[in-house]
Amino acid sequence: MYVVLKESATSEEILELKKFIQKTGHGALEILDGSIKKIGIMGKKDGLTKEELKEFSIVKETIKIGKPFKFVSREFKKEDTLIEIKGRKIGGTDLILMAGPCSIENKEMIMDIAKVVKENGGEFLRGGAFKPRTSPYDFQGLGEEGLKYMREACDKYDLVMVTEVMDTRDIELIEKYTDIFQVGARNMQNFSLLKELGKTNKPILLKRGLSATIREFLMAAEYIVAFGNEKVILCERGIRTFEIATRNTVDINGVALLKEKSHLPIIIDASHGTGKKSLVEPVTLGCILAGADGAMVEIHQNPACALSDGEQSLNFQEFEILCKKMKKTLEFKESLKCL
Amino acid sequence: MYVVLKESATSEEILELKKFIQKTGHGALEILDGSIKKIGIMGKKDGLTKEELKEFSIVKETIKIGKPFKFVSREFKKEDTLIEIKGRKIGGTDLILMAGPCSIENKEMIMDIAKVVKENGGEFLRGGAFKPRTSPYDFQGLGEEGLKYMREACDKYDLVMVTEVMDTRDIELIEKYTDIFQVGARNMQNFSLLKELGKTNKPILLKRGLSATIREFLMAAEYIVAFGNEKVILCERGIRTFEIATRNTVDINGVALLKEKSHLPIIIDASHGTGKKSLVEPVTLGCILAGADGAMVEIHQNPACALSDGEQSLNFQEFEILCKKMKKTLEFKESLKCL
Amino acid sequence: MYVVLKESATSEEILELKKFIQKTGHGALEILDGSIKKIGIMGKKDGLTKEELKEFSIVKETIKIGKPFKFVSREFKKEDTLIEIKGRKIGGTDLILMAGPCSIENKEMIMDIAKVVKENGGEFLRGGAFKPRTSPYDFQGLGEEGLKYMREACDKYDLVMVTEVMDTRDIELIEKYTDIFQVGARNMQNFSLLKELGKTNKPILLKRGLSATIREFLMAAEYIVAFGNEKVILCERGIRTFEIATRNTVDINGVALLKEKSHLPIIIDASHGTGKKSLVEPVTLGCILAGADGAMVEIHQNPACALSDGEQSLNFQEFEILCKKMKKTLEFKESLKCL
Amino acid sequence: MYVVLKESATSEEILELKKFIQKTGHGALEILDGSIKKIGIMGKKDGLTKEELKEFSIVKETIKIGKPFKFVSREFKKEDTLIEIKGRKIGGTDLILMAGPCSIENKEMIMDIAKVVKENGGEFLRGGAFKPRTSPYDFQGLGEEGLKYMREACDKYDLVMVTEVMDTRDIELIEKYTDIFQVGARNMQNFSLLKELGKTNKPILLKRGLSATIREFLMAAEYIVAFGNEKVILCERGIRTFEIATRNTVDINGVALLKEKSHLPIIIDASHGTGKKSLVEPVTLGCILAGADGAMVEIHQNPACALSDGEQSLNFQEFEILCKKMKKTLEFKESLKCL
Repeated sequence: MYVVLKESATSEEILELKKFIQKTGHGALEILDGSIKKIGIMGKKDGLTKEELKEFSIVKETIKIGKPFKFVSREFKKEDTLIEIKGRKIGGTDLILMAGPCSIENKEMIMDIAKVVKENGGEFLRGGAFKPRTSPYDFQGLGEEGLKYMREACDKYDLVMVTEVMDTRDIELIEKYTDIFQVGARNMQNFSLLKELGKTNKPILLKRGLSATIREFLMAAEYIVAFGNEKVILCERGIRTFEIATRNTVDINGVALLKEKSHLPIIIDASHGTGKKSLVEPVTLGCILAGADGAMVEIHQNPACALSDGEQSLNFQEFEILCKKMKKTLEFKESLKCL
Repeated sequence: MYVVLKESATSEEILELKKFIQKTGHGALEILDGSIKKIGIMGKKDGLTKEELKEFSIVKETIKIGKPFKFVSREFKKEDTLIEIKGRKIGGTDLILMAGPCSIENKEMIMDIAKVVKENGGEFLRGGAFKPRTSPYDFQGLGEEGLKYMREACDKYDLVMVTEVMDTRDIELIEKYTDIFQVGARNMQNFSLLKELGKTNKPILLKRGLSATIREFLMAAEYIVAFGNEKVILCERGIRTFEIATRNTVDINGVALLKEKSHLPIIIDASHGTGKKSLVEPVTLGCILAGADGAMVEIHQNPACALSDGEQSLNFQEFEILCKKMKKTLEFKESLKCL
Repeated sequence: MYVVLKESATSEEILELKKFIQKTGHGALEILDGSIKKIGIMGKKDGLTKEELKEFSIVKETIKIGKPFKFVSREFKKEDTLIEIKGRKIGGTDLILMAGPCSIENKEMIMDIAKVVKENGGEFLRGGAFKPRTSPYDFQGLGEEGLKYMREACDKYDLVMVTEVMDTRDIELIEKYTDIFQVGARNMQNFSLLKELGKTNKPILLKRGLSATIREFLMAAEYIVAFGNEKVILCERGIRTFEIATRNTVDINGVALLKEKSHLPIIIDASHGTGKKSLVEPVTLGCILAGADGAMVEIHQNPACALSDGEQSLNFQEFEILCKKMKKTLEFKESLKCL
Repeated sequence: MYVVLKESATSEEILELKKFIQKTGHGALEILDGSIKKIGIMGKKDGLTKEELKEFSIVKETIKIGKPFKFVSREFKKEDTLIEIKGRKIGGTDLILMAGPCSIENKEMIMDIAKVVKENGGEFLRGGAFKPRTSPYDFQGLGEEGLKYMREACDKYDLVMVTEVMDTRDIELIEKYTDIFQVGARNMQNFSLLKELGKTNKPILLKRGLSATIREFLMAAEYIVAFGNEKVILCERGIRTFEIATRNTVDINGVALLKEKSHLPIIIDASHGTGKKSLVEPVTLGCILAGADGAMVEIHQNPACALSDGEQSLNFQEFEILCKKMKKTLEFKESLKCL
């Protein structure tokens, strides 16, 4: 359920209403949908009644949300959500290109990459310090050391840091360093992790699970919002199908459908989505045009020598070209809206 | 195996070589790859030897093709194939938008649709006269009557006709009417049908099977080429996955990969690929940018009343907008090549 | 719709009713469901009315069938269907084990295999004369020559012959030789083929398509029945999933569900279903216990030298053991019914 | 790598070798494979050499393991592993049937169910106190209260307790109550959780992920073993495919293949695997015959009123019949070995 507020509502009145909602054990999510103020009432089903809410004079309407995913849906909020982080806006017309290596291997490499990202207009540095690896015998990441290197690189080049968290116990540590938490595909339904991240204040990049339906994906996002953090960025990174010529199958239908069903920003990760560097550019650009707000790519000084995911990483030159084409594609997409 | 010919080769010499190849029980596929003449030698594995071929002075080189799909591969032909039909060129920069109803319901409807297609710059009319239907109790199409209506509509508005063939026994009849044969997804591995169509002279629009891998898709195309008809147009129309929010999952990776691996033109059918009219535009445009050369869409005067596939059909106004955006997208794609 | 007849109905009365039904353009499918006579009325939706049928005094009841698949459903017929062919009954407690090579390679091999099949209590010989092959360059089968060898082997050892038909044009030829037509997975939705086979009189072994749902599978069976041939044997042979450790994924849920939803007999083909000879025995026995009435297996003198599918073929000794265990399993399954 | 020990090796000598191995930073996993003693050397790739190990006189052989999954493979241990817990043996011929409700709803219900489980020869009580739910608004389980009820029920009826752990932070709490930890499908690749459970001493029931390949499943088991706990029970619970007639698709091929590739015991969960109560019995029995060592089922006093998963839960009478048939099936399976 949510309430639509009258335009005349003052801050004091809104605060009073929110306190009332919270006192009944519900969450109160205040948003601005275009020029309309709304408050989402989250939590227990058998909680507040229409009548109780209507007693507040600033309440114009109370509306039930039909969908199982509620506060991430367009039913709740019609306008696209913009997530601001360190002056960048995710979900609008800015170039959002999160780039970096699969794993941080050492300080020099992350410094070099950060420089290249910045020079080409990328504003986000991604990289793994804690790595989910299929085999216990594979390189598991540098841990806190990796976080430190990344932070240093981001500070030096004024980049926004994105890194993965895999364990509720690591949230506190990682929060000291990162700007955006990433939840990996394998943890999309790690509900303990989602709940804890819902209690933090930083944007969450939520990757779609390998066999998660669009509905489950949005429900996972709903978990984070329901526990208090509405800054969720969705990331399509390919689903698992019978096709073996590519590592995964990027769901372009899903990208377009997410844009239709949800107000949250969407990012496309064609590196994992295709698993082949030659496909990263066409698939990234195609998904941007189909609705994605930004992209994530793996880049590496020397892809052939990467400790992980080398065959899907772009080299610096390929990255430069992708940046240029992506900027053009974002402009072109904007121009189509006027037709 | 194929041979590369010397530039100096005369038509007589080439003819002589082809006759020799055919006499040994092989097919001889003559193509122009950019400015280079090549002859593909199709058929029996243990046939001609390098040595026999080298005896012809116009043979510059003989090259083995490593892939299981041979004559549809980039290994055989580096340049994109252009398929000409009634003055239109499929596989280049022209707007290729095949539009029409799922089933031809009566003469008036197909005439109306043909008019709209033409007015918006579409040059191809698609429609089903023989319909593959999951249930024996559903409408199975108008048969020859439908073919006649379509032909009349195409003649009146100067459109290229595309219609499905489901049975080897119908090829002769349908050939009298159509310009392009369509092979449906369910028949992608109907090898009898592929072989017979290989013996015809008209372009074949081959739809990818619901669970066909890219490799199997190219092998099916190879069947048609191996039996004598190199005019194959590939059509991605979505694969079957666990996702139920959309009818199928359009494989944008596959589109990009087909472009990389094969010289044949690729068409995207987002109507079947998504099953939802609201997704047709974003997914079509996205796939064009990712590599598709054209698109196929279902349109209908009144989608809500269509005898089949109503919920994925565009109305005339939506079609008009798609045409405009698709033209812009093709131009934009061309402009990116100069970056 | 179907009608339930009174017990007192005479053959003359039933014949009269059937003629009436057929005169209205419907098919009339007469069956015995336990001790109850029923007539299925097939075809046009807006055909006969309850009232017209009730005028025949032998009509006890008229019943609408709710499911999209009608005459193959348990709603129409509660008792399991037994299909008799040359004295064997498929669908009951007999050992139904269809065995033979993927492709018939020459006369000697098929004679040897036939002997082994017979000696171990198998009553059905399967083998491919017309082969659907992914590549046009692979061995396509011996054609009519293969049919002749198979017929000779079946006559010599008193076996029932099962072979695949891929093309409507081949039905007449194959019908001269075979006892049971097989429709391969790739042709499960080749509706032209299904319709033509519906007009024949011999049992049809219908293989499930690689990505066909249970509903689509039953609808394909319904096609054959709706066109006049109720002798359909369903064959589960594995579906296509993301798993690559096995060739396909045998759907044991599907086996149990088909038994629940349909009265038709079900056969399990674990050779194609697993693609690995070591898995054929456990998976076959498991599916028999879960509901399958019989099995199909590939066997070969020397699997390592088979022209196709060698790695999934059993040798003669493995086949002997499977026969023994399968007999025991059928008995055990019967014994569980008394618990 | 592992070493095969000479028969003459004394406990002191073995201990000495293990200490040496551990001092080099490796894990040392001592097992008895039939009558042969082996020590698995786990961890760093570039660790111990053959030569160093051969210096110990009790070392008969050192063997490299080729597979990516090492200590869970048959290459390391040929004989089936028996996991003993409170006098029951999982992995042999005992009836292993873990039964209980999806969620523990209150004390009375779990007491009633425990009684029924015991009376029918079940020795394991399963039930969820911490529930992974797709929606944040669904019932999330009773938490510690549920654990207490379950422990009480297990103590009263002498049953082995199995319950799910979803979060590394909960391990300590749950360990106080449970006998076996369950890792749910959604957490199969929650590597932090796997590592921590590897440090505990209790058996781990590891459910296969919805889209996990057999290889990934065994790698997840390998994580637990590699971190020190070799008591892993694999659980097939259906994979996600295109089929929508059943909740998931039970992979009977996978059951047979796991038995071939790994020495670990395998349990089949046909409740989640099929999602339909009518299919639970046939699919459970079929998978037992195909190789599973035991089963897990959901039961409920009144399935129609269950707070979760009602349509896949058996009632008490259906459970009683399943128990009887499962015992018979285990005996029958044993008898087949003598053929």
